[in-house]
This record gives sequence, C-alpha cells and structure tokens, in this order.
Amino acid sequence: MLTDIVILAAGQGTRMRSGLPKVLQPLGGKSMLAHVLATAAELAPRRIHVVVGFERAAVQAVFPDAGINWWEQTRQLGTGDALKAALPGLVGAERVLVLYGDVPLLRSATLREFIQQTPGAALGLTTATLCDPHGYGRILRDVAGQVRGIREHKDCQPDEQAICEVNLGMMVLPVAPLAGWLQGLSARNAQGEIYLTDVVAAARADNYAICPFAFADATEAMGVNDPVQLAEMERVFQHRQIRALQLRGLRVADPARVDIRGEVTCGEDCWVDPNVLFVGAVHLGNRVKIGTGAILQDVEVGDDAEILPYSLLEGARVAAGARIGPFARIRPGTEIGAAVHIGNFVEVKAAKLGAGSKANHLSYLGDAEIGTGVNVGAGTITCNYDGASKHRTIIGNDVFIGSDSQLVAPVTIGDGATIGAGSTITKAVPAGGLTLSRSPQRHIPLWQRPRREKQ
Amino acid sequence: MLTDIVILAAGQGTRMRSGLPKVLQPLGGKSMLAHVLATAAELAPRRIHVVVGFERAAVQAVFPDAGINWWEQTRQLGTGDALKAALPGLVGAERVLVLYGDVPLLRSATLREFIQQTPGAALGLTTATLCDPHGYGRILRDVAGQVRGIREHKDCQPDEQAICEVNLGMMVLPVAPLAGWLQGLSARNAQGEIYLTDVVAAARADNYAICPFAFADATEAMGVNDPVQLAEMERVFQHRQIRALQLRGLRVADPARVDIRGEVTCGEDCWVDPNVLFVGAVHLGNRVKIGTGAILQDVEVGDDAEILPYSLLEGARVAAGARIGPFARIRPGTEIGAAVHIGNFVEVKAAKLGAGSKANHLSYLGDAEIGTGVNVGAGTITCNYDGASKHRTIIGNDVFIGSDSQLVAPVTIGDGATIGAGSTITKAVPAGGLTLSRSPQRHIPLWQRPRREKQ
Amino acid sequence: MLTDIVILAAGQGTRMRSGLPKVLQPLGGKSMLAHVLATAAELAPRRIHVVVGFERAAVQAVFPDAGINWWEQTRQLGTGDALKAALPGLVGAERVLVLYGDVPLLRSATLREFIQQTPGAALGLTTATLCDPHGYGRILRDVAGQVRGIREHKDCQPDEQAICEVNLGMMVLPVAPLAGWLQGLSARNAQGEIYLTDVVAAARADNYAICPFAFADATEAMGVNDPVQLAEMERVFQHRQIRALQLRGLRVADPARVDIRGEVTCGEDCWVDPNVLFVGAVHLGNRVKIGTGAILQDVEVGDDAEILPYSLLEGARVAAGARIGPFARIRPGTEIGAAVHIGNFVEVKAAKLGAGSKANHLSYLGDAEIGTGVNVGAGTITCNYDGASKHRTIIGNDVFIGSDSQLVAPVTIGDGATIGAGSTITKAVPAGGLTLSRSPQRHIPLWQRPRREKQ
Repeated sequence: MLTDIVILAAGQGTRMRSGLPKVLQPLGGKSMLAHVLATAAELAPRRIHVVVGFERAAVQAVFPDAGINWWEQTRQLGTGDALKAALPGLVGAERVLVLYGDVPLLRSATLREFIQQTPGAALGLTTATLCDPHGYGRILRDVAGQVRGIREHKDCQPDEQAICEVNLGMMVLPVAPLAGWLQGLSARNAQGEIYLTDVVAAARADNYAICPFAFADATEAMGVNDPVQLAEMERVFQHRQIRALQLRGLRVADPARVDIRGEVTCGEDCWVDPNVLFVGAVHLGNRVKIGTGAILQDVEVGDDAEILPYSLLEGARVAAGARIGPFARIRPGTEIGAAVHIGNFVEVKAAKLGAGSKANHLSYLGDAEIGTGVNVGAGTITCNYDGASKHRTIIGNDVFIGSDSQLVAPVTIGDGATIGAGSTITKAVPAGGLTLSRSPQRHIPLWQRPRREKQ
Repeated sequence: MLTDIVILAAGQGTRMRSGLPKVLQPLGGKSMLAHVLATAAELAPRRIHVVVGFERAAVQAVFPDAGINWWEQTRQLGTGDALKAALPGLVGAERVLVLYGDVPLLRSATLREFIQQTPGAALGLTTATLCDPHGYGRILRDVAGQVRGIREHKDCQPDEQAICEVNLGMMVLPVAPLAGWLQGLSARNAQGEIYLTDVVAAARADNYAICPFAFADATEAMGVNDPVQLAEMERVFQHRQIRALQLRGLRVADPARVDIRGEVTCGEDCWVDPNVLFVGAVHLGNRVKIGTGAILQDVEVGDDAEILPYSLLEGARVAAGARIGPFARIRPGTEIGAAVHIGNFVEVKAAKLGAGSKANHLSYLGDAEIGTGVNVGAGTITCNYDGASKHRTIIGNDVFIGSDSQLVAPVTIGDGATIGAGSTITKAVPAGGLTLSRSPQRHIPLWQRPRREKQ
Repeated sequence: MLTDIVILAAGQGTRMRSGLPKVLQPLGGKSMLAHVLATAAELAPRRIHVVVGFERAAVQAVFPDAGINWWEQTRQLGTGDALKAALPGLVGAERVLVLYGDVPLLRSATLREFIQQTPGAALGLTTATLCDPHGYGRILRDVAGQVRGIREHKDCQPDEQAICEVNLGMMVLPVAPLAGWLQGLSARNAQGEIYLTDVVAAARADNYAICPFAFADATEAMGVNDPVQLAEMERVFQHRQIRALQLRGLRVADPARVDIRGEVTCGEDCWVDPNVLFVGAVHLGNRVKIGTGAILQDVEVGDDAEILPYSLLEGARVAAGARIGPFARIRPGTEIGAAVHIGNFVEVKAAKLGAGSKANHLSYLGDAEIGTGVNVGAGTITCNYDGASKHRTIIGNDVFIGSDSQLVAPVTIGDGATIGAGSTITKAVPAGGLTLSRSPQRHIPLWQRPRREKQ
C-alpha cells in the first residue's frame, strides 16, 4: 500500500524556554526532528511531509535537501488542525502514518510492525499500559473491549483517570475518509484545541476498524516538553547507543559515562575509560585504548594506538601503534604516522608526522610536514603565522629539533639535521650537521637579585 | 505568634571519622549548618539559637556575624538535654521550632506549612510513613488513632518495630510548659540518653494537643551519620539544584554529572556538557556553551561566549563572543574582552585583554594589560616576577608578539609594534616597526649528533 | 578437613567478542581470574587448582608464580567434564570447593560460611531466590522440601520455569564419590553438555545429604557473559570499594564517579572530587584534597597536600603541604618536597624538588635534582636528551631560573644563582650572580608587518 508519513513539528515548546523551536533541540548532537526524519526514511514511504509552524523558516533551513514536503500550520490550534495542513499532499496515498517531531526515540522496526499489523482500511493507534498514566490520553473501550475513543487527560472524568491504558500518539490513518474526519473535529474540550485523537471516535462512527498496537517498550514513545525531559531522553538515547556498541564487543569502564554524538565503529578489544566523548564519525581499529576524558571528533584510529587521558582529537587520522597524550590537542587536517608519540601539552594542527617521530612536550606544530624518526624537543614552535598568512614548515627525516626552538615558516629543514636548543630558525637548514642561533653564556658575578623586604 | 528556632548542633558524629564537627561537613560546598541556618532565616523567626558542644569554638568561628544565639551543651546526654541548654534564650517566645544541624535539605516552605498547621498551644511533630522504618523512632498511636508517644528504634518491642510511621525529628513546642517537660525526662532507655522525643508523652499527659505533620517528601528530612550518607545527600542536593536550573531553561547533557557549589544564573539557551563544576557566583549570558570538564568559579560569561573543554576560570569576566580553551586557565582578576580567543595551554592571571585579541597557544600572561586586536604568539611569556615583586606588562593595540618571546616586566609595547619570534624584550618597545633580539643562524656542517650505540 | 579449591576457567566467552580469554577480562584493573584466585587464597585451602582450556597458555602466563595447579580441559564439553580434568589433583583432599573464573565478586567470608555450614560428607550447593530466575538452573525439591536436583534453564518444563529458587553454581563436593558421579554424567540435555549440576541428583541417589546455602546477596555470584555484564559488574565492584573507603572516613563528592584499580589507603578528612581515578597502590595522608579528573597511580601523598584538577601523577611521592596542578603531569621517579608548588602545564619526570621550590607554569623538568627554595620560571625546559642519552640537571638551593630558559644537560647551577630570562645554559653556572645568554634588543622602525589584503 502507498503510505505517506506526516511529521507534526509546528509547536514552540514554551516550557523549553528556548529561542530554538522544540524540534530543533538536540539529542545525541542532532536535532530531534533529524532523528524522526531518519526513522521515517528507513520506512521508505511514498512521501515524507513535515508540518511546521513556530519559527518555520528556521526549521526548514536545517534540512535544505532532505526531499521533505513542507506544510505550514499558521495558527497552533491543535494536532488535528496540524494534520489538516498536510492533507493536500496526501493525494495519491492510501494511508498515512502520523509521527511527531518531538518523539525522537522511535525505532523504525517498531513502526514497521505497527504498520504491518494495521489492516489496510483500519485506523491504527499506539498504546501502552503505564503504572502512572498521568498526563496521557486514555484509551476508552466499550463493554466488548473494543476501542471506542481516546480521552485527553484534562478532559477525563475521575473514573477515566483510573484507566492505565494510554495513547502514545502515533497513528496510521486511511487517507480517503481522513479529510471528512478532520473537518468534523471540534475544539470543545478542556484545552480548547482540535485534538487529532478525536478521529478515533469519528472512525468508529463510520464503522472503520480501530486497531490498537501496544508498545513493548514505551520509552520509545517518550516526548519532550521541558529541559528535564530532554536530558532524560538524552540519557536513554546514550544508553541505547553504548549498549549496542558493547554487544558488538566494545569494553567501557562505565556505560553511564560515555557520550556518542555521531557514529562510532570499532574493531576487537577496544577499551574506553570514563567520560569519553565521541562526535561525528569515529572509527577505532583493534585493541585501541581511549583514556579518561578524551574527546574524539571525526577521527580514525589505527590498531593498538593509545589515546591517553584528556586528549582532544578532531578531524585527524592516527596510524597503528601511535600514542597520543595525555593533554594533547590534535586539530583538523592532521595525520599521525605509525608509532608516533605526541605528548603532553602539545598541539598539532594540519600537520603530518612520519612514522616513529616524537613530539613529547609543550609544543605547537601547525601547517607542518614532518618526516620519519624526527625528535621534536620540548617547547618547539612552528611560527606559521606572520600576521596575515599561514606558512608551512617542512622537516626531513631523522631530524633532531633542540628544545625551545622556533621554526619561522616558510622554512625547510634537511634530513638528519640537528637544531640547537633555543634557536630561532628563519632560513633553510641544510641536511646533516648542527644549526643554531645562540648568544654566548655570560656570568655577572656581582649582580644581586631583588629581595623581598623582610617585614 | 513569636516563634524561636533552636538548631541542635552539638554532636561529634563519630561515624564521620573526621576531625571536623559533623555540622561543618560540606554539602554543595557549604557546611550543613550553614544550610540549616539559611533555611531558618527564611522563616524570619524572633531569634535563632544554636546549641553547640563538640568543637564548639570551631563551629562558632565559622559564623562570626550571623546573629546567632549560641548555647553550649557541655556533656552530650541526648537531644532532650541539648534543648535544655537553650531554654534561657526562649524567654519571651511563645513557641519554638526545633531543627537539627545535620538535616540540611529541609525546605523553608515545608517548615512554614508545618508551623502553620500546628495550632498555637499544640505540640507539632513531623512524620513520614516508610517502607523500611529501621532506625527511626516510631509513632505510637492510641486506639482512637491519636499520637500518644514516640518510641526510639532501640527501645521498640517487636510489634512496635513493625510500625512504619516514623518520627522525622523536627518539632514545634509551646515554650511555657517546655522547661517542666524537659526536667521530667529520664535516660532510662536502651541508649541511656535523654530523648527529646519523650516530650510527646509528657505533653499528652498534660493534655496538650499532639499534631503530627506528614512530610510529602521524606528525603527533605534525611540526616547524615557517616560519609556514605553525606555523599548520598550531596547527590540529592545536586539533583535538586540542577533540576531547578533546567526548569528555568538550562540544557545539560547529563544532570547526574554537573556539580554546583554556589549560585548559578543563566540566560536563554545555554548548554552545559558533562562534568562541569560551578563554584561560587556564576552568571552565564544567553547562548553560552560550557564544554566538558570545565570549572567556573565566580565568573561572569557574556552572550554567545564559548568555554571549551577542560578550561578552568576563576574570578574573571568573559565578554560576549569570547572563546576560551580547551585547556585554558583563567585566574582571578582577569577581564577577557569581546570576541577574544584564549587557546590551549594558556594561563592568564590578573590580565585584561581588549576586544578581538588572541592568545591561542602555550602562553603565560600575568599582570598584563593588552589592547585590542593583539596577536600573542605561541609560547609567549610575561616575566612578571623578579624574585621579589610582581611587575606589569602593558601592550598597545594591534600588536603582534612573535612566538616564544619573553616580555620582561615592567615593560610597555607601543601600538602596532611587531616583536620578532624568540625575542627577550627588556626595554620599552616603540609603536610600529619590528623589535627583536636575535643571534644569527649558524651552520656547523661537520658536527655529529651523538648516536645511540647499536647493540 | 582437607579442602581443595577448583576454579573452572576453560571457557572462551564467545559473546565477549574478544581475543582475550574471558577469565582474563579486567575488573577493577585486574583479571577476573586474579580476583577469584585471591579470594580462594584467603580461604587457605590445601591446594588451588585451575582448569584451563581456551587460550590455555595465555591464561597460565599471567600467573607464573602463583602456586596454582593447572589442569587442561581439552574439549569444552561442559562444567562436569571440566571438573573431571582436575580429579587427579584432588587425591588426598577430603572435599573440594568449586568456583568459577568468571564469578569474581564472591567474598571469602561468604564462602567460608558456606563451607562451614556444609557437613563433612554432604554436597553443598549455593542458591538464591530471584524475582527473575530466567537463565539460571532451578532448584528442584521433593514433597518433603529436600533438594532433589538442579534443572538447567533450557531443560526446564513450563512448571519448573516458574521456580524462583536458583542455583548460583558454587559447590562443595566430597572427593571420595566424586569420580564415580562425574563418570555417570551424560550430555543428553538441551545443550548437549555435561552439566556439573547433575551431580546433585547423583549424590541424592547415593544418599548423600544435599545442603543448599542461600546467598544473602546474590550479586556476589554474578557471572559475566558479554561486555554489558562486564561493565555492570565493574560498577558493582567499584561501588563496593568506594563504600568501604567511605566507611573508613573518605569523603567523595560522588561515589558513582570514582574508579579504583588497585588499593587506596587514606588518613583522616581526605576529599575526592568527581572523576578521580586511582591505579595501583595509592596512599593519601590526612586532609589531602584530590581535584576533579585527577589520576593517581602508585603515588604517596603527604598530609595537607592538594592535587588540583586534571593532574596526572604516576610513581611519585608528594610531601606534606605540596600543591600540584591543575594540569600537571608528574611522571615516575619524581619526589616532590614539602610545600612545593607545581603549576599548570608542567611536566616533571624523574626529578627531585626540594622543600618550598616552585615551578608554576609551562615547564618540563626531567632527570633533574632541584634544591630548596628554587623558583623555576615559566617555560623552563631541561634539555635532558641529546638524541642518544639522557643527562641530568643539578640545581642548587635558592636559585631563580628566568622564564623560557633552556638548561642543556648535563649541567649544574650553583646555589643562589639567577638565570636571565630566555637563556640557553650549556655550561656550569657558578653560585650567586646573574648568568644569561642574550642578544641585544634591536628596533627596525621602517619594517612593515605583512597585512591581510582587504577583499
């Protein structure tokens, strides 16, 4: 059957107390609406429609090329009214799945089962039985046990409030009668809103079958109304992601203290210490160890490499057996060769280090190409910026850079060269030998250091 | 009615295994007694009394100007005896609210309701019904359901141990009969202590009304006996604080991994990543992002500023649009101008940086005044200490400091000046032009680097 | 009675998805088997036997000197078959306690009680009553309530699946009849394995007493099958360790955010902030404060010392009153004297600092001996490596090292010497006076800094 999906995403979310429309609030580093759109796409519907309202342009701007059919709800009169806005787009579809831009944890497998279990011309609704149904619409059943309607929480009579079977919101609706049902909805209820849930009674009046689909895990249907709930959902989402990685073999010291905002893949026997944050696309090879507090963003790490605590890597490739950190900062455009060591308080930006090279202490290597087997002494700085442009430093193989040297780019250093400690290198250095800039050491015996006055 | 508050704070807390009196143990960065005193003050009583005993002087020294009436319990004979110590201070009050220095989570709103619901001449007590009443005094009721007394856990008969209604400890007592009741208490019980709880039976014998007040949330009445409970209470306290901020709009990645030891206020759409610690008075403007692991103590951060991971800021102001970190250390007395960038491994102390200036790498800027649009190269150090005194470095606008320069204070650098990399600047630098101290680069072709002997 | 212990450790643990045998997976930084061996040793048995199979050599290699009797199960036919492999070693023992290499949380006190409560010739088994018995073998009892056997989960009839009393696995068995029982076991069951649990029915057939021992805390008997369970157990283990330290007086801001991989001891009134990691043997004196994110490995810290946030210490001694960090890295072989200050972005390796010395900013001190009262300026680097060997730097007392100096080792600096900022020190420096290497400051007024072209 030709099925469309409509995602309702028009609300402001006042209780979020945010300038951002609610559906753009992030979950795992990506907007809630992006999660729902990805889930919708996995179902391969005929078309995906999104109904926007509050900050419409801001929402649409985030998804410029997503093949979405956008519809506008001009006034926020309720969910029934919102779906009406998308009606023109449903022509040609046989039924429609209604989703919500602020219900981002739904799994496509669950929705697929929901759709499959809803017969063609029936109205499908999603339910759960909760210990505490407060706030949810209740499922009303007749004496035969058939669903006869949904009563929103604020409209419930005391006996209805005791019902624990609730509506989770997602629906499958036949398109043919839908316009008629929506036209017939009224706002005569406690909130003065046009409820989509009232189509259930309308469908029953028209003798359509009503098919409830009970969720095994109601957390999938969690919605977000305020920052407390957003944070709760973030933890559920993170837990789900970490668990999936664990079952594929990842060892983590504490699943409650890892955050993934993107996609992580890893080989065998990787270990992740507490408070690691993964962002974007991260791939770890085999036997990679990630120390506590590290942040990896868009990084590939080779087999047996070790990322020591509090190292930040972004946009970099780290070859097998390399050792990074602690307190290292690797910035975009960096390629770390095999068995390279980058030590503490070292920043590397857009640099390439050949196999076996080392920069262990307090250095800045930017816009540099460094050969193999190079030893970069403590305090070395590539002076890559002249106030207007960035320039490159090219270092050959087997070079030894003495501590506290400045390499004023553009500059090249030949293979096997040694740079004396404390030198300012402004001209090309030939291969081999020793190059330095140094003033002689002098002693002034009678000089007296200022002393703090005794009190 | 004239009400006094007595806070019992005489205990040692042996199970804390600490040299510090129990009521001085910290919760959210502030002593437990300070929390109770703040709550007491919110109730605007006639007088606040504190009964101290163990390490009396140490406790009093922490609150030198708090308008507290201090009383001493010379021997720790029990809560009934402790209250006796404060009796002389109650002259003129009609009733007294009894609180405890180790029950710091009580809300003043709850206590206000407790006082209001206790009629003038009645004895008010606080209760809860617990699944596991172990350790608590049980509420004894007569056949008519009236409270007839409290039995401490260790004195309970087996049938009394089954009672789940417990005494939470806080009491409202009429002052007039109180001295008589307290005189009549005995220590003939399992612990050989004079229990304050025994005044309930005394009041009943005197035909005073006994009014139990049931707490909706018994965690408010949690007390602390050992470091395990102190840590549990710390988490409850932190959870309460974070939740209040979330409901005002703060977005946090993980509410269980934020700590607040002071007061935080924030504008709209701020984001706090895991493991951030706030200390003292912190104000965040709108759209401020705080990266993982940052510590902010007594800091003001302007709109759209970004604090990158693992940055420590103390006693500083950060203007709008600034970007700090990662791995930056901002120390007291620092003012960061608009759109300033402070990068990794940079320490700033008592310095002022004008708008748009940058110090991105591996630098120490102390006791400095830096103009607008200044570029501080990697490895720059203000040599502010001569062994006896600190001196200032004054840098004009649009200055470029080459990498690895030392600015030996006191020193001034004129507008638009450029300092060559690796220079030691000991004298005033005029505006414009290039200033440097540098030895010529030399090459010694025949020099041989020591080689590790082959094995 | 002479009791042996057999630890079954032959399994691969396929669901761990690891190249490491399951019993070598770490818990609290130490393999699961090491935990079980330590618990076994506390029971002082006649002999400890371990039955290995998968990656046998790898397992044995980890415990070269542990006095273990190793036995091999050549094919993994089930637990009953595994125990058979150790039978030859049991000659001379009267009974045997069977443990498991992947059940590491057992306490020796619990096992001691289990052994004591099992009469000499009886078969003792360990049980618990669980809300969710899924996956466990069920305890079958006869109408008289006597245990008649154990049914593995996959072999249970529906009515047996409802039994909530389960087998936890540990057993005490009489050695004399054991060989006969094991010979009689068959693999005719759902998993086609030779179950050790079937000896219960065999023992009953031989009229041996069957004595179930119910665990008060079933988490002690938790086993590990996949990385999710390993991480859960890690948290249980960490919680147990932290709690023990808390009850001895340690104050922690969040017990869920401390990790101990080794042994920690501490004096009175120590405080540990969130996300601290202890590795190896760590001793803290009295009133030590450990800031957030610090890592201490094999470290001794003296009274009143303070470790500021994000400091990494390994293999070091820190004397009383010292202050380390934030962002300090202390590497093995370091001795920090009393009241020494090591500040941000400072790395110290194999160095000794005398009382009251300070290195507050951006320095590398390696292979150095530093006297008392020394001030090491920002950016100081000991150049200890010449490309082939490491050399030592010796600094006397009351020395002042100006900022950004390089001390090219081997080199000595006399008492009271002052080194001018930016100097490269290559020769011995006499006591007193001022030593420096410096080029004169020059000004080139007409030089123009490159400017970014306007667009």
